[in-house]
Amino acid sequence: MAVVVRNTPRTDLALVDALGAFGVATIHESQERTGLFASRLRPIFRPVRVAGNALTCQVAPGDNWSILVAVEQAKLGDIIVVSPTSPCDDGYFGELLATSFVAHGVRALVIDAGVRDVAELTTMQFPVWSKSISAQGTVKETPGNVQVPIICAGAYVRPGDVIVADDDGVVVVPRESVPTVLDACQAREDAEAVKRTQLAAGQLGLDMYVMREKLRERGLRYVDGPVP
Amino acid sequence: MAVVVRNTPRTDLALVDALGAFGVATIHESQERTGLFASRLRPIFRPVRVAGNALTCQVAPGDNWSILVAVEQAKLGDIIVVSPTSPCDDGYFGELLATSFVAHGVRALVIDAGVRDVAELTTMQFPVWSKSISAQGTVKETPGNVQVPIICAGAYVRPGDVIVADDDGVVVVPRESVPTVLDACQAREDAEAVKRTQLAAGQLGLDMYVMREKLRERGLRYVDGPVP
Amino acid sequence: MAVVVRNTPRTDLALVDALGAFGVATIHESQERTGLFASRLRPIFRPVRVAGNALTCQVAPGDNWSILVAVEQAKLGDIIVVSPTSPCDDGYFGELLATSFVAHGVRALVIDAGVRDVAELTTMQFPVWSKSISAQGTVKETPGNVQVPIICAGAYVRPGDVIVADDDGVVVVPRESVPTVLDACQAREDAEAVKRTQLAAGQLGLDMYVMREKLRERGLRYVDGPVP
Amino acid sequence: MAVVVRNTPRTDLALVDALGAFGVATIHESQERTGLFASRLRPIFRPVRVAGNALTCQVAPGDNWSILVAVEQAKLGDIIVVSPTSPCDDGYFGELLATSFVAHGVRALVIDAGVRDVAELTTMQFPVWSKSISAQGTVKETPGNVQVPIICAGAYVRPGDVIVADDDGVVVVPRESVPTVLDACQAREDAEAVKRTQLAAGQLGLDMYVMREKLRERGLRYVDGPVP
Amino acid sequence: MAVVVRNTPRTDLALVDALGAFGVATIHESQERTGLFASRLRPIFRPVRVAGNALTCQVAPGDNWSILVAVEQAKLGDIIVVSPTSPCDDGYFGELLATSFVAHGVRALVIDAGVRDVAELTTMQFPVWSKSISAQGTVKETPGNVQVPIICAGAYVRPGDVIVADDDGVVVVPRESVPTVLDACQAREDAEAVKRTQLAAGQLGLDMYVMREKLRERGLRYVDGPVP
Amino acid sequence: MAVVVRNTPRTDLALVDALGAFGVATIHESQERTGLFASRLRPIFRPVRVAGNALTCQVAPGDNWSILVAVEQAKLGDIIVVSPTSPCDDGYFGELLATSFVAHGVRALVIDAGVRDVAELTTMQFPVWSKSISAQGTVKETPGNVQVPIICAGAYVRPGDVIVADDDGVVVVPRESVPTVLDACQAREDAEAVKRTQLAAGQLGLDMYVMREKLRERGLRYVDGPVP
Repeated sequence: MAVVVRNTPRTDLALVDALGAFGVATIHESQERTGLFASRLRPIFRPVRVAGNALTCQVAPGDNWSILVAVEQAKLGDIIVVSPTSPCDDGYFGELLATSFVAHGVRALVIDAGVRDVAELTTMQFPVWSKSISAQGTVKETPGNVQVPIICAGAYVRPGDVIVADDDGVVVVPRESVPTVLDACQAREDAEAVKRTQLAAGQLGLDMYVMREKLRERGLRYVDGPVP
Repeated sequence: MAVVVRNTPRTDLALVDALGAFGVATIHESQERTGLFASRLRPIFRPVRVAGNALTCQVAPGDNWSILVAVEQAKLGDIIVVSPTSPCDDGYFGELLATSFVAHGVRALVIDAGVRDVAELTTMQFPVWSKSISAQGTVKETPGNVQVPIICAGAYVRPGDVIVADDDGVVVVPRESVPTVLDACQAREDAEAVKRTQLAAGQLGLDMYVMREKLRERGLRYVDGPVP
Repeated sequence: MAVVVRNTPRTDLALVDALGAFGVATIHESQERTGLFASRLRPIFRPVRVAGNALTCQVAPGDNWSILVAVEQAKLGDIIVVSPTSPCDDGYFGELLATSFVAHGVRALVIDAGVRDVAELTTMQFPVWSKSISAQGTVKETPGNVQVPIICAGAYVRPGDVIVADDDGVVVVPRESVPTVLDACQAREDAEAVKRTQLAAGQLGLDMYVMREKLRERGLRYVDGPVP
Repeated sequence: MAVVVRNTPRTDLALVDALGAFGVATIHESQERTGLFASRLRPIFRPVRVAGNALTCQVAPGDNWSILVAVEQAKLGDIIVVSPTSPCDDGYFGELLATSFVAHGVRALVIDAGVRDVAELTTMQFPVWSKSISAQGTVKETPGNVQVPIICAGAYVRPGDVIVADDDGVVVVPRESVPTVLDACQAREDAEAVKRTQLAAGQLGLDMYVMREKLRERGLRYVDGPVP
Repeated sequence: MAVVVRNTPRTDLALVDALGAFGVATIHESQERTGLFASRLRPIFRPVRVAGNALTCQVAPGDNWSILVAVEQAKLGDIIVVSPTSPCDDGYFGELLATSFVAHGVRALVIDAGVRDVAELTTMQFPVWSKSISAQGTVKETPGNVQVPIICAGAYVRPGDVIVADDDGVVVVPRESVPTVLDACQAREDAEAVKRTQLAAGQLGLDMYVMREKLRERGLRYVDGPVP
Repeated sequence: MAVVVRNTPRTDLALVDALGAFGVATIHESQERTGLFASRLRPIFRPVRVAGNALTCQVAPGDNWSILVAVEQAKLGDIIVVSPTSPCDDGYFGELLATSFVAHGVRALVIDAGVRDVAELTTMQFPVWSKSISAQGTVKETPGNVQVPIICAGAYVRPGDVIVADDDGVVVVPRESVPTVLDACQAREDAEAVKRTQLAAGQLGLDMYVMREKLRERGLRYVDGPVP
């Protein structure tokens, strides 16, 4: 019943790497606050930032078989994105699989489940975002789909969409939106550079964003203390 | 409906800094185990310790508007304490707001919600205690109260109460109790220095605290093994 | 009603230290995936690895009295394993108790509850695995059992069983299984060294484990994209 | 160190009962969305609604001693509100204590912890809102404060404030606000009766609240499908 | 930025109602274990079962504005499916909105957030599946998308997909799969009727499914006790 | 590697049923507050009470195969107790398996995981205590141990130990302790009957338990209000 889809599209690595110059928060804002993975996914070491093409992978609870299947489909610059069919904290991934990932050009793992060997993965500086850290092993009995659209930690991910992950979490950019999002990210960073200078000089956000009138309309009042 | 209270009292910074020489656990013990924030608030980097005057701020879920309002009320040495009106994990605060905080003398943020840009905040070494890390942005539609008494992570905080936060968590000291608590902290540390020496020399807590009789009365028995 | 069992068996420290050369995931795998503590137990600093004889200790919620009782029973190379009789996040343990532990040769603490003074414990490099970090203090009113078999974070631990803990979590090895598990760990590491070389050279897990036929039998199919 | 405050104020029962005619959601709205207890507090049976004067009670984790102390302070129409000094799920309260509560005119229990004997409590129809149901017993070693202001499940409660609780949860009304809140509740119910009729007749909220223009200003657009 | 898509497709109500004759577990099994909502969504009363066309609705945290927008798009037999853009427990929906829903033919609400007025909703027998019950009110400031594909509690839902919900939870059937899934459900129920008779007569699952050989191959052994 | 142990001991059903006359809280108290399962296990319908011999069963996450294996070992009056090797919320059990259980004399299911078909199970009045309700199906690929000692929801259970479960939760009584615990339960109930009469007559627990002196020694003071 499980399927591996070959020859799925990928985003050009030049675009991927251009996106990877921006942080997750910037990208999330630049695509109308869409594509963010649930905040339960955390990096196993910090600081870290990576971008890559999504190579999607579904797994059964406590069963990492399709991760091994996925590696064969990897191309340079991929990030393997793994979602279990029901919630699971087990350690699906460790140092041996990471060695295989590295050999096949995989840049990172994003998994809505657990991983193990985090000391070794940290030494290797192989980036992982996971829901938990657990030594609990998994079986290899039930194959799952590879390179089909999946939902991972609440985000909808298709093969070849771009994944960017950093200390703040993980975001997906649909592959057809990448150029637009890139432009929006650059515009946002340019605007933020100006704001940063103003704020560093002591200007108030209330003035910089011209908000005092709107606050008054929404009912904000100023009174003098003390309060009880 | 929202109000900003100006001219609220603050604790003298000399007292604030004197308190900040003690750890959160020591202060918590020295005021009869009161004032501790829930342990879900964690620092975004470690080690860290800071003390300051509470500048309180209520926010709607997913809405950080009143944090911008709060900055205008800041004085040197403040810690902005933010509580949402219902539970929320969104990223209310990031590097731009931190820049503004620093420009206005704010020493730290304590928030019972999420923050983002934690890599940049770590580089800036701007201290933050939060419930979560999330890139999810917030809106600016609903103003909230600033500088009124609030409940944040289970602790009751009034403007100008002293906040101390470190690797163990966050504690609030009511402003009128600061001198008493300071004395109690010093007394506790002095007593602990003696105990530390005794324990390091191998004395047992059972003997140091003279507990053997009380243990016997409460039913503790010693038997020889083995057990199953 | 509480009991302290003296003269319980311990595992020879040469065996303990031999086990400590392996990671938690390896040991867990080498004893048929048994003995793992729940993943909610996390180290307070990383990287870290330690092995020792279990010195077991039951505590009431919010009451750390029996930890002081336990120290007296400690021998060089012990790890004190603490389980509350109902779930609790309080800070049962801090720098003073750690000082006492060190003086009595205790190597680490494993506790299904909270600890405090984590900055000081980190400076001391005293290893702790806990469920939470909390400054909340505890009382000394209700003694609990020491050196009886306990369940801690879902694992069954008897005095003198071997505890190994690292960045991945905590595992217990029954004292009578230690020699067998040691052999199995070594065999597993030897086998993994071979696999690591093959995987690093780019061999696929699918081929290395000869899985393609079994995958086909379980229904895995390959198709060509694109997918929607 | 613990204190029982006698002779604290209470709200007149006529006012209490008048408030109890309204639901928790209505009251919460009528006092500017303040005073709501965290939603983790749930009734042990449904449907249920009760109102009473808060009789406040702090307890140590796993220790229900001060609940027994509190009963002596009870007056007809009280609701005992219990908050542990740190999170606890134990069963602090059961059928025997409920029998004592009933004998002293106590109408209900609100507790940010656990209870037991829920079958018997249901048969008695004694209303309880709790965080958990657990048979785990508690000790009587550490007295806590009774009839002092407390924080319970995130709400600030003083002796004699009015507690109303129903299937939706628990809310507190400060005793000096009761007359104002009563008026606001009645006004809200009157307004809702009109709205209910309009909505039942098929009028849209968009029209009833005259929201179409504001929606357009905030960027809402209508397009014709289909969508992918 | 928000959009309402009109004229989206719907599934014929005859098909919807035919699906509604089956339980959620049966449907989930009949479409290869896909489409299940996370188990945190629970009905506010039991027993209950309903089927309808998905009318999708995105909301901001603590903001229920777009639910009012959605009602206008409702057709007889719809189920409104609401997903917040970040996790939220607030009470987005109560008795007034339910009155409006009923007036417009809406059969149920599925929401990955909170609701209130559950006593009144139960009296009305208006079916709701929610993540929480909370009296906490919401604002109307930020419009969200209506009738676009959404992810709700981990399930991907498009307008006009069929939602079936019962005591076990909630499942979505893609509208183009409905006929196939219907057939599979009937076949499964027919097969289960046979099995039920066999099992009721005492036949073992091991024999009915002919599993003894496979169990032996996978390593199951039988030994005689006692065990320790 | 998995094993089924046959011919394990059981507790005489007369004793089992005698224990089942008492509630879980009473039994838990009568064996020094041991043997309680974690409070996350909740009955799928209430009120309910059952007692039986433990028939233990380990399962892999998302794999219910060994439950089918367990049924063959059932004897009249058994309660099947299921524990996954790592945390899992899937629906391991439904109406078909319940039919098989009933046919083999099994009285109830206790499972630290999920179940489905709860409407049908309620109609059948087949008692179940579970961690979750989920329609998510499971596979049959990995056999687990049956009738070996297990840890389930934090409780240590051996084949033939007595399980009692009711609205408050689940408790296990070691089979060799049953006569002693029975006596202690009866003594406790007798004592409680006296106390109940006294409390119903208005006597205070403080007086009934003669606690005033001890409270004073522990520092409780009485003062007259008002308080702030």
